[in-house]
Amino acid sequence: MKEYLKKAKDASIELRTAETVVKNSVLENLIEILQNSKQEIIEANNIDVIEAKKDGLKASLVNRLILNESRISGMIQGVKDILEQEDPVGTVVKGYKRPNGLTIHKIRVPLGIVGIIYESRPNVTVDAAALCIKSGNVAILRGGKEARHTNMKLGKLIQKALISSGLSENCIVIVDDPDRTKIMQMLKAKNEIDIIVPRGGEGLIQFCTEHSLIPLVKHDKGLCHTYIDRYANPEKAIKIAIDAKTNRPEVCNAMETLLVHEETADKIFPELLNKLMSLGVELRGCEKSLKYANIYPAKNEDWDTEYLDMILSVKIVGSIDEAINHINKHGSMHSEAIITENYTEANKFLENIDAAAVYVNASTRFTDGAEFGLGAEIGISTQKLHCRGPMGAYDLTTTKYKIYGSGQTKG
Amino acid sequence: MKEYLKKAKDASIELRTAETVVKNSVLENLIEILQNSKQEIIEANNIDVIEAKKDGLKASLVNRLILNESRISGMIQGVKDILEQEDPVGTVVKGYKRPNGLTIHKIRVPLGIVGIIYESRPNVTVDAAALCIKSGNVAILRGGKEARHTNMKLGKLIQKALISSGLSENCIVIVDDPDRTKIMQMLKAKNEIDIIVPRGGEGLIQFCTEHSLIPLVKHDKGLCHTYIDRYANPEKAIKIAIDAKTNRPEVCNAMETLLVHEETADKIFPELLNKLMSLGVELRGCEKSLKYANIYPAKNEDWDTEYLDMILSVKIVGSIDEAINHINKHGSMHSEAIITENYTEANKFLENIDAAAVYVNASTRFTDGAEFGLGAEIGISTQKLHCRGPMGAYDLTTTKYKIYGSGQTKG
Repeated sequence: MKEYLKKAKDASIELRTAETVVKNSVLENLIEILQNSKQEIIEANNIDVIEAKKDGLKASLVNRLILNESRISGMIQGVKDILEQEDPVGTVVKGYKRPNGLTIHKIRVPLGIVGIIYESRPNVTVDAAALCIKSGNVAILRGGKEARHTNMKLGKLIQKALISSGLSENCIVIVDDPDRTKIMQMLKAKNEIDIIVPRGGEGLIQFCTEHSLIPLVKHDKGLCHTYIDRYANPEKAIKIAIDAKTNRPEVCNAMETLLVHEETADKIFPELLNKLMSLGVELRGCEKSLKYANIYPAKNEDWDTEYLDMILSVKIVGSIDEAINHINKHGSMHSEAIITENYTEANKFLENIDAAAVYVNASTRFTDGAEFGLGAEIGISTQKLHCRGPMGAYDLTTTKYKIYGSGQTKG
Repeated sequence: MKEYLKKAKDASIELRTAETVVKNSVLENLIEILQNSKQEIIEANNIDVIEAKKDGLKASLVNRLILNESRISGMIQGVKDILEQEDPVGTVVKGYKRPNGLTIHKIRVPLGIVGIIYESRPNVTVDAAALCIKSGNVAILRGGKEARHTNMKLGKLIQKALISSGLSENCIVIVDDPDRTKIMQMLKAKNEIDIIVPRGGEGLIQFCTEHSLIPLVKHDKGLCHTYIDRYANPEKAIKIAIDAKTNRPEVCNAMETLLVHEETADKIFPELLNKLMSLGVELRGCEKSLKYANIYPAKNEDWDTEYLDMILSVKIVGSIDEAINHINKHGSMHSEAIITENYTEANKFLENIDAAAVYVNASTRFTDGAEFGLGAEIGISTQKLHCRGPMGAYDLTTTKYKIYGSGQTKG
């Protein structure tokens, strides 16, 4: 690990001052190399898939691990999107002249060395590397051990792209760590790594939070709510609620709890709950809701559970305030929505819900970098420090003050 | 502590949506209350000062602890400056409409609950409270135990100001913690406190880094360099170097190491080193420098030492690259300066030095919120995440996406 870190530090000095054309040329090379290496990638991936099946990995996790022709094309498209994005480095955030003549420019610069600790999906290796290269950061990538062969192969291809553009191959470091010991070493390298991005399940996030001496940007769970207000348009409400739950229930911006105003329940529940059940959604509800459909009584822990599955908690509330309080208490502050036609209720919800993304009359499923027009993302930050919500190339930078003087002294 | 945190959470719901006029009225009340309570404050402070002397606290620390008429006036001026600053909350960072009709606004909002752990100077209590109120944040303030009576008194006065404006007194929580147990409880309260700002010596910062489960913004040491280039104007170089070292050697933006190009040493050193010595500066130098004055040979650890005192390390370098490498290796990435008349050298230094503030032809002593025109500061961040350099009211906010839809679904 020590050697990895030394190499990364040296590469960072080179990469953080690299011009945009050089960084973009790496991405162009990478696109070509990936296009020409599909077979190699699939072969390496096959080794991982076979081992994963042998080790009895859950079918859904094996599925996430698999790379085929179309998923590799998706990966290539991701690099193309990042290539087309603007380079955030060098942007003048603000600039001004002080009364004493000092000219001060606040400028975006790369963070330096970014440690990314993630699980399962090997496409993260390419996404994260491309975003880091674009923003001038060295990436130390520690992927899941179940994707070990795939990640090593992808790493080699990325390094080939770096070398073709005249940059050091150490701008991207793939950490081979079959037994997790190097995660701990990364978390303690406070003089070498500038930030750690943990991306994965609650166990991984908690482990990093407890042991890291390096600032983290967490990509934690999403316990998202949709609140159907007393002034909701029933048609919009039904359409949005079904989309938020069933479009892709396994992702962090899917709805986990549905709140409905008691005056609206009679109008909306019969149709909405039947549709949800016919799509295969299991319902767990508060006492008042039980009469509307075949609903299991919700336990206390249901209000705090991120199912990531075709399960939905349902609660009837007496007022918008009760809905807001419930969300601020149980939500993970990721994405929250109100369905209403009322101006004052909409604004009240937008102001009082303390989440990264707050919606009026839309599905929470839109919270991601591409949908927000930010381009590719390294994940969705669930903390308030540094960046909140979809984290793109811009958020992989920090600022630096350049101060132009002419002999000024303080005394 | 649990009760403190519960009260803070409730108060935060109120404060984070408070309008600017309400928050400003608290600051106006506070100015008046402080003006009318000088005697009370001095009396409470006297108890601390007497105890500190009895406990044998270092004279310099006792001096930092003392509040007199003029220091209280300084504190009041600080609140006046914060009152006049712009409220960052509600600023639209960006706003746009997506092709599907979703209107997305990214808006600055308060962080929520800010825990500040600091030492000694009781003026931080008022500064930090005022900055947090301005930016809509509840502040949990844990000051040094040697300032206990002063801080409790100042806390009561701040709470009086809050109540006069109709806000909860719990918007500011003063943690009475004579034995440090509550620091640890604050660092573990990850569901209640949004960020921790540790401000103090290396021991305190390290303790917080090791134990915190909450994101930190560190206010660490400043090991600042001034590099006198071969193209330096000797007059500017001498004036700036003397200011950077002797104007206030005990603060974090003072110079600790002077680097000089070998071709410049002959021209500048005789006059500069004599002046520094006549002002009482002790010099510790590299081998080549020893011949120029009465200089002690520098030990290896001198290049990594923040003296905060009238001591200066001196090193002669063969090139600007050697200077840049030395700074990037030994500097704390706080404030670094080059003295040169050469355009290319100046830009090289500005680009390649990875510090929060990089100067050309000016003293590093300018790195602070007031000098940068940011108003009062809660300290100077020495990390790259969230904010870097002087941290003002703006940096006590995060962002939230408000998304205005009309029935959009993803599927």
